[in-house]
Amino acid sequence: MKKLINSPATVLAESLDGFAAAHADIVTLGPNRAFVQRKVIKPGKVAIISGGGSGHEPLHAGFVGQGMLDAACPGQVFTSPTPDQMMAAAEAVDTGAGVLFVVKNYEGDVMNFDMAAEMAGRNIAKVVTDDDVAVETSTYSTGRRGVAGTLIVEKIVGAAAEQGMDLAGLTALGDRVNSRTRSMGVALTSCTVPAAGTPTFTLADDEMEMGVGIHGEPGRRRVKLASADAIADEMVAAIAGDLHGKGDALLLVNGFGGTPQMELYLMYHAARTRLEQQGIRIARSLVGSYVTSLEMAGCSITVSLLDDATTALWDAPVHTAALRWGL
Amino acid sequence: MKKLINSPATVLAESLDGFAAAHADIVTLGPNRAFVQRKVIKPGKVAIISGGGSGHEPLHAGFVGQGMLDAACPGQVFTSPTPDQMMAAAEAVDTGAGVLFVVKNYEGDVMNFDMAAEMAGRNIAKVVTDDDVAVETSTYSTGRRGVAGTLIVEKIVGAAAEQGMDLAGLTALGDRVNSRTRSMGVALTSCTVPAAGTPTFTLADDEMEMGVGIHGEPGRRRVKLASADAIADEMVAAIAGDLHGKGDALLLVNGFGGTPQMELYLMYHAARTRLEQQGIRIARSLVGSYVTSLEMAGCSITVSLLDDATTALWDAPVHTAALRWGL
Repeated sequence: MKKLINSPATVLAESLDGFAAAHADIVTLGPNRAFVQRKVIKPGKVAIISGGGSGHEPLHAGFVGQGMLDAACPGQVFTSPTPDQMMAAAEAVDTGAGVLFVVKNYEGDVMNFDMAAEMAGRNIAKVVTDDDVAVETSTYSTGRRGVAGTLIVEKIVGAAAEQGMDLAGLTALGDRVNSRTRSMGVALTSCTVPAAGTPTFTLADDEMEMGVGIHGEPGRRRVKLASADAIADEMVAAIAGDLHGKGDALLLVNGFGGTPQMELYLMYHAARTRLEQQGIRIARSLVGSYVTSLEMAGCSITVSLLDDATTALWDAPVHTAALRWGL
Repeated sequence: MKKLINSPATVLAESLDGFAAAHADIVTLGPNRAFVQRKVIKPGKVAIISGGGSGHEPLHAGFVGQGMLDAACPGQVFTSPTPDQMMAAAEAVDTGAGVLFVVKNYEGDVMNFDMAAEMAGRNIAKVVTDDDVAVETSTYSTGRRGVAGTLIVEKIVGAAAEQGMDLAGLTALGDRVNSRTRSMGVALTSCTVPAAGTPTFTLADDEMEMGVGIHGEPGRRRVKLASADAIADEMVAAIAGDLHGKGDALLLVNGFGGTPQMELYLMYHAARTRLEQQGIRIARSLVGSYVTSLEMAGCSITVSLLDDATTALWDAPVHTAALRWGL
């Protein structure tokens, strides 16, 4: 295992300390590093909280800040955070208007966020994201997995919360955005969880995992390495075939951590061309490594259908470590 | 070679097409993809142009936009762009106030930018960056190499140009920022140039290259893999020992392309702690993969001493694909 670390046991704590120090204008770290929260809480606003296993950075702590999340709870690498982290985060950022949990659809995450919601004695609703079209059920999930589309849900409900939308409205909005968002990924290499010390899976030099999950869990099938165009053909067909509608869309090409930008923009070009041929107009774009799997090489493609309201919410000002515009 | 590409011969063109499409609100692509330019040119402003071999993305095209570069010339991977690219870029963005070339100190780049300056028949000055303290002379350079500190020079002179500084002032400012900026890198793995198809260098499972260059060229020495703290000890000592001064500084922890954010923030934490112990106060921070070597794993640390004027220029609004704030 080749990593810039001191010890697997201290990776998360040292990284969070660095994150909080580097972005001290935006975030503060909660007691015992249980959560990352916005430095300035806006009274009367519904609080948006997310979280999950670490190793997907910048998701979720990188999305904490004005116009997006109020807090994020980091679990150990690829391990759900605990209910007490979520309860502490809710205590810190709930100003009385209620809390929306945005949860990726993995059993551990859903269970722990549900427990926290039950025990917190607060007005808490949740949106569960399940945008991954690759598989219908998987290693860690019943039903589809929540992957890079989660970023889009977090941005759009975050903007709406900033503008004063109430908890019921935000929940419906988050569910609607999730239902109009589809993703699929491909891995060229594995990742290595620091505490494990060995690669999560192995791929031959001429193989890739089509439909891979963001923890390196299996996708649809293991296939021979193919060209970018052939990969885009399969991924776009799977996504577009599952989207209920056409029209304007946001295209997110997301790197898994070990893929150069040059390849991501090339995949963006391939995906965009194919989507537009199918009547999906790319109105907004995001290209970069936002929902990662440590150092895994590969990428995912996400398409989210937009309307005027969600386009305006996507464009609304945001000031986080990883996404920033209009502020 | 595992890459998301169609053919080594078309990687750059397809990637540039994707980049231009994804960021059509900020940039346009010049004829024959010779350069990337700002969509809106500001008349009367000195034009800032950079460029170099591709494979370091987002450097330089990702820094084209308001408040930073007017144009960037992408060469093939790790290969200097040609003088005709630079001349075409200057023709496109020079509105009469002159042109500043920002050039990383590699022989091919310096030679080609010099040829372009001579042949262009325009008022052109240049700033050559050489912030890498690792080696005094190297595979592709006479004298120190220009590495991640180039980003800082480009941001600060870009902001000053936006505010109306003239060409002589910008040249002096760029030289001054470069002289107060020091970097050093470490590689845990190699990168693979698409046209070569095999790794640029090889490292054993327990080795790293201390002082590596951004093309995977040799650094100070090959050593056994060490802890993040030990790596930070050596890099910070080399950087701080070469900086002429203390006080406020910008700390940039830069990933080389294959390193997770979790490790970058951990290294930031280690570097910041050590710098502050030596009387260097971290007033500004940037953590991410900005000056990369394709998918190489590893990072560089850059420290740039700031004063009130350069701090204000760093903070000034910028709107590019890779850096955006205040707009």
